[in-house]
Amino acid sequence: MLNIGIIGAGRIGKVHAESITYHVKDARVAAIADPFISEDTSLWAKSLGIHNIYTDYKDILKDESIHAVLICSSTDTHADISIDAIRAHKHVFCEKPISQDLGEIKEVMEALKDSDVKYQVGFNRRFDHNFEAVRKAVNDGQIGDIHIVKITSRDPDAPPIEYVKVSGGMFLDMTIHDFDMVRYLTSSDVVEVYAMGDCLVNPVIKDVGDIDTAIITMKLANGAIAVIDNSRKADYGYDQRAEVFGSKGQVAVTNDTNSTAVISTASGVTGEKPLYFFLERYMASFSKEVSLFVRSIIDNTEVPVNINDGLQPVLIAKAAKKSIDENRPVLLSEITM
Amino acid sequence: MLNIGIIGAGRIGKVHAESITYHVKDARVAAIADPFISEDTSLWAKSLGIHNIYTDYKDILKDESIHAVLICSSTDTHADISIDAIRAHKHVFCEKPISQDLGEIKEVMEALKDSDVKYQVGFNRRFDHNFEAVRKAVNDGQIGDIHIVKITSRDPDAPPIEYVKVSGGMFLDMTIHDFDMVRYLTSSDVVEVYAMGDCLVNPVIKDVGDIDTAIITMKLANGAIAVIDNSRKADYGYDQRAEVFGSKGQVAVTNDTNSTAVISTASGVTGEKPLYFFLERYMASFSKEVSLFVRSIIDNTEVPVNINDGLQPVLIAKAAKKSIDENRPVLLSEITM
Amino acid sequence: MLNIGIIGAGRIGKVHAESITYHVKDARVAAIADPFISEDTSLWAKSLGIHNIYTDYKDILKDESIHAVLICSSTDTHADISIDAIRAHKHVFCEKPISQDLGEIKEVMEALKDSDVKYQVGFNRRFDHNFEAVRKAVNDGQIGDIHIVKITSRDPDAPPIEYVKVSGGMFLDMTIHDFDMVRYLTSSDVVEVYAMGDCLVNPVIKDVGDIDTAIITMKLANGAIAVIDNSRKADYGYDQRAEVFGSKGQVAVTNDTNSTAVISTASGVTGEKPLYFFLERYMASFSKEVSLFVRSIIDNTEVPVNINDGLQPVLIAKAAKKSIDENRPVLLSEITM
Amino acid sequence: MLNIGIIGAGRIGKVHAESITYHVKDARVAAIADPFISEDTSLWAKSLGIHNIYTDYKDILKDESIHAVLICSSTDTHADISIDAIRAHKHVFCEKPISQDLGEIKEVMEALKDSDVKYQVGFNRRFDHNFEAVRKAVNDGQIGDIHIVKITSRDPDAPPIEYVKVSGGMFLDMTIHDFDMVRYLTSSDVVEVYAMGDCLVNPVIKDVGDIDTAIITMKLANGAIAVIDNSRKADYGYDQRAEVFGSKGQVAVTNDTNSTAVISTASGVTGEKPLYFFLERYMASFSKEVSLFVRSIIDNTEVPVNINDGLQPVLIAKAAKKSIDENRPVLLSEITM
Repeated sequence: MLNIGIIGAGRIGKVHAESITYHVKDARVAAIADPFISEDTSLWAKSLGIHNIYTDYKDILKDESIHAVLICSSTDTHADISIDAIRAHKHVFCEKPISQDLGEIKEVMEALKDSDVKYQVGFNRRFDHNFEAVRKAVNDGQIGDIHIVKITSRDPDAPPIEYVKVSGGMFLDMTIHDFDMVRYLTSSDVVEVYAMGDCLVNPVIKDVGDIDTAIITMKLANGAIAVIDNSRKADYGYDQRAEVFGSKGQVAVTNDTNSTAVISTASGVTGEKPLYFFLERYMASFSKEVSLFVRSIIDNTEVPVNINDGLQPVLIAKAAKKSIDENRPVLLSEITM
Repeated sequence: MLNIGIIGAGRIGKVHAESITYHVKDARVAAIADPFISEDTSLWAKSLGIHNIYTDYKDILKDESIHAVLICSSTDTHADISIDAIRAHKHVFCEKPISQDLGEIKEVMEALKDSDVKYQVGFNRRFDHNFEAVRKAVNDGQIGDIHIVKITSRDPDAPPIEYVKVSGGMFLDMTIHDFDMVRYLTSSDVVEVYAMGDCLVNPVIKDVGDIDTAIITMKLANGAIAVIDNSRKADYGYDQRAEVFGSKGQVAVTNDTNSTAVISTASGVTGEKPLYFFLERYMASFSKEVSLFVRSIIDNTEVPVNINDGLQPVLIAKAAKKSIDENRPVLLSEITM
Repeated sequence: MLNIGIIGAGRIGKVHAESITYHVKDARVAAIADPFISEDTSLWAKSLGIHNIYTDYKDILKDESIHAVLICSSTDTHADISIDAIRAHKHVFCEKPISQDLGEIKEVMEALKDSDVKYQVGFNRRFDHNFEAVRKAVNDGQIGDIHIVKITSRDPDAPPIEYVKVSGGMFLDMTIHDFDMVRYLTSSDVVEVYAMGDCLVNPVIKDVGDIDTAIITMKLANGAIAVIDNSRKADYGYDQRAEVFGSKGQVAVTNDTNSTAVISTASGVTGEKPLYFFLERYMASFSKEVSLFVRSIIDNTEVPVNINDGLQPVLIAKAAKKSIDENRPVLLSEITM
Repeated sequence: MLNIGIIGAGRIGKVHAESITYHVKDARVAAIADPFISEDTSLWAKSLGIHNIYTDYKDILKDESIHAVLICSSTDTHADISIDAIRAHKHVFCEKPISQDLGEIKEVMEALKDSDVKYQVGFNRRFDHNFEAVRKAVNDGQIGDIHIVKITSRDPDAPPIEYVKVSGGMFLDMTIHDFDMVRYLTSSDVVEVYAMGDCLVNPVIKDVGDIDTAIITMKLANGAIAVIDNSRKADYGYDQRAEVFGSKGQVAVTNDTNSTAVISTASGVTGEKPLYFFLERYMASFSKEVSLFVRSIIDNTEVPVNINDGLQPVLIAKAAKKSIDENRPVLLSEITM
């Protein structure tokens, strides 16, 4: 039985704590830490059987009985906590992105060099049933050589403007999942990026220097071309689709819905909207990614999403931002750490 | 070039005249007859290049240059005109049903016995792209032995009550197409029928002794079970579906629509309603059935829908009516001519 | 926190034990009883934190700390255990069917008369997301008055012949869920039944006096007509669909699949088969039905599936069997307890 | 009755001749001209009732009874014949593209300046039922302001290499339809283009200086972003889809198929592949575009696809080619005539 400490008791920290308690075999949440932990959160933690509740994550790192930590704190703290945890010989599952700063990611990579701790990054969508089915079809050779990859990723609504300000920009905050998806579905790296974007949803987002709508085109190392289309607001809900087209055919996945119900009336033939947002849509992926993290520790195998998988989407996001700023295609090799 | 005479210049007669003119190879409409032909209809006929316009169909039968006739007059005249045409050595395409009266059908069969004219019945849905695809899958053995056949057939709106009164009842007027479809899809005959029906759409239909909603179950000679569900009024339009389920799987067809457009908004994900009614839905089948009739004359081959195919659905409809009246399963062998 | 005892540690007993442990709030499994409990099952029970493991279910009934029992034993024991549990003042969740014998069900009803225990029957499909969506659309008036109900229910493969022998026949064993579904979707009772059935999947099933393929037509108290089509073996998997058609339109649900992946190649455009069988397809419904049972105890409200809901499908199944045997429509009022 | 002369008796000329004969009201084909007209073609023309068959198109232009011409000859002759026809006061329907050379298009525009002849360009896909439905939803305001346009356009197989050599390149030959579609669906012009492309289908295409796979991103005058993905070879057939996403939702269309048949077996749930190629997929659009051309002549109204609509996609194609060559986004204003 693996003892896990959760660092950060916000929304995603709570999701992981419940998911581990109810769905992850061979692991339990032994401690949780958050500098601003509330009375309610403490009660919630106790109801899950988590008895060690701290304000300082270092208390978790000091606890000899803890085998691994999940870093669910704010993004700006991920790198420092990662390094502290690695030095304390705790296996680390770090929410995405590791950092908005490449130098910080480099430091985490350095810390890992002389260490045997497992380090997994929280790209949960890799463990979604639909995207797994796409990757399986690709890997099974059903579509032949990959020619074109298309990802549609649209949020149901733009985040609050205060969040947008500190988000690092749409590419680092939202598209980063789609950049990872391109790599996951193709098992290939991105070589060059061209992004066309604008602020079409909410002009205030432009005022704070960000965009809300974009199409990003990428050349991959395997010769394929990928394209992502993003919007911060799809009125019909959370739109999460992917297609991989190749020499023998195509595999495509569309949205999940609450039911298969189709209502036919004089107004038309109407099905349900996509599941509302990432917690509904990707809930099963959160327990699956941690289950595999736990397995890789117990079996001493490779983690399914390693630190390079954490780094690459940040590089692509930086290249995409540079492309928007300079209105030209940008090579990933131009982005230096 | 086959010269065709059309008997009856109502809606379906006009459909056939236009369809032959524009879409049927090796045939042309040389004459049309209707006792109540209007000035407008005469002009329309001339615009199609039909120069022989009669009020008496016998003028068509006398015309030596006419090779074949299409009987598109009212149902009660089908049998008599059929017999006259057969005796005049004209090939006959007769709209369905041949007659509501089994004795009359028998007389037509008698007339055909000593004749070499082709006689085809107008079960046009056999020539619809969707139902052809079902039959092909069945005949290709893709679903194995047939176990269950399901047909959904619902009109977009009930006909005028004056029409209902003379229609011969829903089974002879509407379900007759579905009875034929069961035979077409399975290449088997119906042995026994049980019908459950009621008047749920419009109580006035009940007042004139008819029903508007029914489920009819049938045992087939090949051992399969078939079920038809009918309604005179589907608020979302003309609902025409079929499924054949067997030992190796199932083939199913659904409705055609005007376009594949799907509109996703805050209200839901909405596609188009089915094509409105039989002229829109089955237009291509009208030219195809006549093309094959023309081919069978030119090539001297079997017609695709023969007089027995015209008789059987009438027998099934009579058995279904008897089943409703007596609330019991009825063998087809109980229906005597 | 409600303490639950599970009687019967077979497949469904285990499903409920795990489901309660991980997914049902305010309840825990405190004891389990099975006359043939194995070492493995005991270990499994302990791993779930179930420390009271008995061979005699009466030990559970004697335990004052137990509030409710789930009867998951073989069907022939359901009634007796139900009565014992009611007398022991335990709330009862009984797997379907209560009994194949109407006299036994009557006895359970008698036992309940002077009791205030809750008694719920395990028609889990009522709590499936798809069927809930159909009922919601119907109850919200989206389809108007109900005219036609259609249920397709086909198993992926026939059960072992030894099971068939003791199953009580396909109607009591398999169709019983569909009979309940008709009542659930329409909020109406069945008045008359006509069944057409045969043995098309496996002739050995016929040898033991059962059928494997059927179409059952029903008249409902609200005037609607319902039809169920059943097969013991659909080669493409577990086929579970429903449609309700009414004066304003139709609501339909189709199968769930493992993913939305569609693969387009030279061979065609292929999606996934339905989820394989009831454990995969209906897993979420098992925890939901027990959650609602627990809520009805805690809140002292009506159970969502009461003993009459348990009785009616058995009556319909008996009428359907009588209909097959006598080849005639059978009124439910003919089936006497 | 409008008399039409067809110039060019190749595949598309024949399609138009048959389509006008059978489906276009108020018009007939009075003459056809082709320098290499065969005996077979002459016989075919006569069977359609076309009695004036020339080798020199100027014979058509001299014929006073001819009101309009359809230019269906090879692309390099379109501009010269257009100018000759305009000068001969014939209304002109010119197949796309008017020319691969912007100077030639300019000359046609000059010739039109002092003329009152109608001049329509053959972008037939504008008259396809699916794309019309998209445009209608957009114009009806159902999706609000346009943010993102996505077009998938993939041929079932690459053309012969001899054709590729003279095609003007994939953008002018194939994507030109998609460039027009972007303008049609959005009623907006393209301002800037970035294209990423490669030769992934057949390396011989690269040898002759062309590409076979591309993703083209465009900024539109209305602020929206559009993206086209192209392949010369989709193994599953002719893939023709479009989506328009806006502030209130999305409208999307997918491929047409021969039937709605879905076959479910142990291998999966399989529907039909898209209709094979443009003649099957877009046949109805060919008669519709000419019908509207005829109407615009008779009613003296604007043609639905004018010479600027013919020019713009050529400009976009040139910009896309320049973008590929220089690996940078290219403004349409950089492309000079």
